[in-house]
Amino acid sequence: MTDAPHGDATLGGQDDAGGAVALARDLIRCPSVTPDDGCAIDVLADVLRGMGFTVTSLPFGEGSARTPNLFARLGTTHPHVCFAGHTDVVPVGEGAWSSDPFAAQVHEGILYGRGACDMKGGIAAFVAAVRSYLARHQGTPRGSISLLITGDEEGPATNGTVRVLQWMDEHAQIPDFCVVGEPTNPQAMGEVIKIGRRGSLNATISVNGVQGHVAYPHRADNPVHRLLAILHELTASPLDAGSDWFEPSSLQVTSIDVGNMATNVIPATARARLNIRFNDLHSGADLAGWIRTVCARHAPGAEVIVNISGESFLTQPTAGVEALRQAVADVTGHEPRLDTGGGTSDARFISRYCPVAEFGLVGASMHKVDEHVAVADLAQLTRIYDSFLERLMG
Amino acid sequence: MTDAPHGDATLGGQDDAGGAVALARDLIRCPSVTPDDGCAIDVLADVLRGMGFTVTSLPFGEGSARTPNLFARLGTTHPHVCFAGHTDVVPVGEGAWSSDPFAAQVHEGILYGRGACDMKGGIAAFVAAVRSYLARHQGTPRGSISLLITGDEEGPATNGTVRVLQWMDEHAQIPDFCVVGEPTNPQAMGEVIKIGRRGSLNATISVNGVQGHVAYPHRADNPVHRLLAILHELTASPLDAGSDWFEPSSLQVTSIDVGNMATNVIPATARARLNIRFNDLHSGADLAGWIRTVCARHAPGAEVIVNISGESFLTQPTAGVEALRQAVADVTGHEPRLDTGGGTSDARFISRYCPVAEFGLVGASMHKVDEHVAVADLAQLTRIYDSFLERLMG
Ligand SMILES: [Zn+2]
Ligand SMILES: [Zn+2]
Repeated sequence: MTDAPHGDATLGGQDDAGGAVALARDLIRCPSVTPDDGCAIDVLADVLRGMGFTVTSLPFGEGSARTPNLFARLGTTHPHVCFAGHTDVVPVGEGAWSSDPFAAQVHEGILYGRGACDMKGGIAAFVAAVRSYLARHQGTPRGSISLLITGDEEGPATNGTVRVLQWMDEHAQIPDFCVVGEPTNPQAMGEVIKIGRRGSLNATISVNGVQGHVAYPHRADNPVHRLLAILHELTASPLDAGSDWFEPSSLQVTSIDVGNMATNVIPATARARLNIRFNDLHSGADLAGWIRTVCARHAPGAEVIVNISGESFLTQPTAGVEALRQAVADVTGHEPRLDTGGGTSDARFISRYCPVAEFGLVGASMHKVDEHVAVADLAQLTRIYDSFLERLMG
Repeated sequence: MTDAPHGDATLGGQDDAGGAVALARDLIRCPSVTPDDGCAIDVLADVLRGMGFTVTSLPFGEGSARTPNLFARLGTTHPHVCFAGHTDVVPVGEGAWSSDPFAAQVHEGILYGRGACDMKGGIAAFVAAVRSYLARHQGTPRGSISLLITGDEEGPATNGTVRVLQWMDEHAQIPDFCVVGEPTNPQAMGEVIKIGRRGSLNATISVNGVQGHVAYPHRADNPVHRLLAILHELTASPLDAGSDWFEPSSLQVTSIDVGNMATNVIPATARARLNIRFNDLHSGADLAGWIRTVCARHAPGAEVIVNISGESFLTQPTAGVEALRQAVADVTGHEPRLDTGGGTSDARFISRYCPVAEFGLVGASMHKVDEHVAVADLAQLTRIYDSFLERLMG
């Protein structure tokens, strides 16, 4: 695989519109595996300052939890449109890469590297799109444009987007609409805009019984049978049939563990773990209450630990979403599906402050060996974000 | 605790009828923890030869599996009454004993030692009862009396009673009735005669699914949910309501193990273990077929391993049982309950050849630290076996 400077024949003959490929390569070359930032946020900050942005560095947390973050804004008026994303990447993994995952090599029109699609490529497209938009508007947006960038989305996410949003709220910097640049397209550009996400809840249920010999079950109290009754009730019926914008909620029992090797002994305890991905027909608190009620009915002393890692949210498809949808359709020629499936992202935090939608690159290779993005896709995403800005602020 | 020779005041002033206490102490002093025999079977063989028995040593198995066994018979005619039991004992356990578990010390009318009640005391009572019976009958039984003694009941039991019975069958030595001397009384002498035992079956069910992310359950196949459906169906209704002589059959799920620590992953496999104690309304094969059918319905590829460790059996309360019942009632003043509950014993093997009942000492301390038997109980059991012989052969 040959390395090559940008703009040459390996870019497939395409112009690197606004410098998206060059910036993506610069960012990939900063090995910013969570919690390390490499140089990624500094590289980005320099570029944004050069474009006239007011850049505020917002590190939060202490010691090993210290997370670099950045808020950058150009303009002070409304509409205020924000692009949000993360510079941190997941580890390179166990498998062997075809090239150095931090070398950002381009081969036959494909840019390879950890973070290429998730989501340094997306950030590069943000910047390139803004540059292109500003070139048509004498360097001044009709409204204002900002970037919310964190160095910890793949990790605990405690000192990242959540803390930056608090700071933005305290400093009257909450935007009117936000686009998160996560890779939303399964296979090809233009497939999916995410306008919401399901909530996620984890529960651990521990049931204590009375140990005994299997030949004398009346002298014991089998916690496995109590746990089975609980899990049967929790899984007996679907939680719902889906809603306008969401697929049905899903409860998955992920583990049951007793660890009793003696075939003639009724064990003393049994434990189960489950996860619920839930739509807008439920709240985490309602589901937690339901789980506790079912447990209390079948095992009054059961210990139930519930952790709600995110509520569901939905951005109604109004002005911002509509501008994004039209931009995607115009540039790609495909009508994107408005979707709420899949895993969670920082959009769940942003949704508490303003309408948010997600659209980015093709995610098929994210978190895998040989993560990559097509140079043509980077150029297309740049044109989509540019068109979106034009429609919302033109 | 003082040691004392038998027959003195520590025996509670009672006569050691037929030498039961002395023989029990000699047997306890042979540390015959399975698979070791110590000197127990040899000690017993010597005593029986001295009483006129024809003693056949029947070791089976090779190397470390070699098990000493003994068949001894006095007389050649019918009725042929057999006493069956084992000289091996379980390990002394983790706790601290008040005296050496193989010293067989007597303290305030209680004989302490591993095997005191399970069941060297029972074997000593066999011998003492026969000696007492013979004393009244000029040394010759009206019929014949035999002992079937194994050195491996507490272990795998492969080369013990099962093999001796085969030999007895081949040599026309099958008795008309057999008494097993296991400790059947929960708290006091005279409570329980066992005339049958439930069968026992162990099953391991392993379900393979398709691993996946909890956010995309349609791309996975959760083996935990398939296993829950199986276990729910297996435990939904009682197996039966009991029968004339048996309590209801009981199915206990003893363990479920998945071992998945990742809260966002649907696991690839799930495994459960269960035990069924079943009465005479079922056979092991029928139950195994039922389990396989239920598994096939909910998880077509499930791996089901079934091990039937014993079928249920019942000895109808006819002549032999009636003689034993009357003997117990006469000697103890209590009407014994005819019972089929509890764990398994070698009686399950004997029942394939002849009617068998079980009656012995008080089992409260069996397999525990400071296992013991009251000297008075040993004397009472001797009188019960003597009275039983008299009723059946007098
Ligand atoms: Zn990401
Ligand atoms: Zn025993």
